[in-house]
Amino acid sequence: MSSGVRVMVLGIGQMGSGIARLVSTREGLELAALFDRRSLGAEENLCDLLELPPDPELILDNDLAEAIRRTRPDVAIQATCSRLEDAQVEVSILLENGVDVISIAEQMAWPAASSPERARALDRLALEHGATVLGTGINPGFVLDLLVIALSGVCLDIQSIHASRVNDLSPYGPSVLQTQGVGLSPEAFRAGLETGEVVGHFGFTESIHMIAANLGWDIERIEQQREPILTTVHRQTPFVSVAPGQVAGCHHRAVAYQDGRPIITLDHPQQINPEAEGIETGDQIEIRGTPTIRLGGRPEIPGGQGTVAVAVNMIPRVLDAAPGLYSMADLPVPAAMLGGHRKGRRSGLW
Amino acid sequence: MSSGVRVMVLGIGQMGSGIARLVSTREGLELAALFDRRSLGAEENLCDLLELPPDPELILDNDLAEAIRRTRPDVAIQATCSRLEDAQVEVSILLENGVDVISIAEQMAWPAASSPERARALDRLALEHGATVLGTGINPGFVLDLLVIALSGVCLDIQSIHASRVNDLSPYGPSVLQTQGVGLSPEAFRAGLETGEVVGHFGFTESIHMIAANLGWDIERIEQQREPILTTVHRQTPFVSVAPGQVAGCHHRAVAYQDGRPIITLDHPQQINPEAEGIETGDQIEIRGTPTIRLGGRPEIPGGQGTVAVAVNMIPRVLDAAPGLYSMADLPVPAAMLGGHRKGRRSGLW
Repeated sequence: MSSGVRVMVLGIGQMGSGIARLVSTREGLELAALFDRRSLGAEENLCDLLELPPDPELILDNDLAEAIRRTRPDVAIQATCSRLEDAQVEVSILLENGVDVISIAEQMAWPAASSPERARALDRLALEHGATVLGTGINPGFVLDLLVIALSGVCLDIQSIHASRVNDLSPYGPSVLQTQGVGLSPEAFRAGLETGEVVGHFGFTESIHMIAANLGWDIERIEQQREPILTTVHRQTPFVSVAPGQVAGCHHRAVAYQDGRPIITLDHPQQINPEAEGIETGDQIEIRGTPTIRLGGRPEIPGGQGTVAVAVNMIPRVLDAAPGLYSMADLPVPAAMLGGHRKGRRSGLW
Repeated sequence: MSSGVRVMVLGIGQMGSGIARLVSTREGLELAALFDRRSLGAEENLCDLLELPPDPELILDNDLAEAIRRTRPDVAIQATCSRLEDAQVEVSILLENGVDVISIAEQMAWPAASSPERARALDRLALEHGATVLGTGINPGFVLDLLVIALSGVCLDIQSIHASRVNDLSPYGPSVLQTQGVGLSPEAFRAGLETGEVVGHFGFTESIHMIAANLGWDIERIEQQREPILTTVHRQTPFVSVAPGQVAGCHHRAVAYQDGRPIITLDHPQQINPEAEGIETGDQIEIRGTPTIRLGGRPEIPGGQGTVAVAVNMIPRVLDAAPGLYSMADLPVPAAMLGGHRKGRRSGLW
């Protein structure tokens, strides 16, 4: 039996199954438990479903407290939800049992953005039980916040921050496409915004508050705009077909103000087949200050693979951290631990 | 009197004076002491020399232990040297007096690269006296190591790492130009490499060992090449004039091998007036893996301003850290603390 870090994965969707696969192949990690709110169908085989090597001991737990008692994980990675309110239920059970938690729920990236009360409650619970909890992901959690903060660190002074992420929604399934309004008419897109069916990007307020807190800026208000990206050509994915004049995606933008002045602008147009109209995907950060810093890359850092990787790669940082609630800006940067994960880093560091 | 973080600056050269100026203007920081190995000339006024606002209480200390006793700094920033052996003398005195230290000495970025024994001695001393010590800078310390490590964190797997930094030496003075062989004939450049007068970039082994340690890679050997950059046109700065056919800079490259395979390649051509031959400056990182990540920017992150900024911006991270010796990859990323530095961060974080 392996003496590696015992990892529980919560959620067996696209993200959770990717995380489980990476954990099962990384030296020094052991996939100790799988939890999901849903049960497997009679016809479903867990390892086949997740494309994991066959393991008769691996079962899908639906009772979290019982699963923790049975499998005694060192750390759990949560990939079951997006909202803080939903995440808090499972995270609290894990913390109460002394299990460190890494969550990819978008609102966990900076929980105080949606609820300072819930953030404080999680922090207190973690401290009380000697456990650590971190919110992470590619966006929020890395591209439009952690990288921005790191680059601010080479500046003497900053006037404003502008960051954009142009990405391709083509690999995503129906639920993501629906939240971006892909395939709708312009009128249905507007109506979807009203009903909350079209949401655009989920995480701007988290990224903005993370940046502002780390730079010592007070944000007086955040303005968000969601505009339909109308295609002039036919665009197609396995899940949707979009005729000219219809919606290929959502251009979501957020601007944060201090003293009436825009200081943080985050821009995130998401669409299927951007190349159909010659649009290059990529990430771009510009910090206007002393000095002005520009850094970017094409194509964009992939959201799916990137989120799976960063969640697993943060395991050693979380295991080493003192108890409490953390954001990505409060811990050392993630690193691809290709030579094996260790249970603790500090001892024998040098 | 301010109740800010009391900062001592060691070194009143270009870097030290820049750091002192930034400390003196940042809310929440107080420039408490200035130390240098040399004394002021009879004609020299300290604040004039450093372009600081007049402050009759600010003197230049030459006795470090006495300066610590008199000024009781919370943290000291060292900008007096490049080599670990030199840095260790002052850093040890500071640690023994319980003062946290941020050093921009190149070899302090990853001290175990040049001397595992000295690294362990500093770590032990810091732990013994409850103090923290960090090596930082733009390169080594940020562009060709910390950013590389952070980007590795979004990868499932990595085959190789390639990073380059093309910069402009025009702003630098005679001592830097000399270490790069600027103005020499090709023959004199070769001779300078032999005598050690021409050194190229100082910090490749630190960056490579920092990356490798964080990725869990074992490095079997590092090969370094230093080639003269011969100009085809006349190039000129206030300090040097270079005729066609002579040396405008040094193209320094390092390749690290694992199992006979090159896994980390760092490329750093440094020259005056690169634009004279149409060369664009910039930083570029490519991680070949799953996924492949490319990130870069033009022009390069400026080495001078950037090093001043990152040293000061790491103050809150160092004050918050547990005692010991740290690299930039072992602490949270720097952030431009524009809204005031605090003595401790953890309490009241949420």
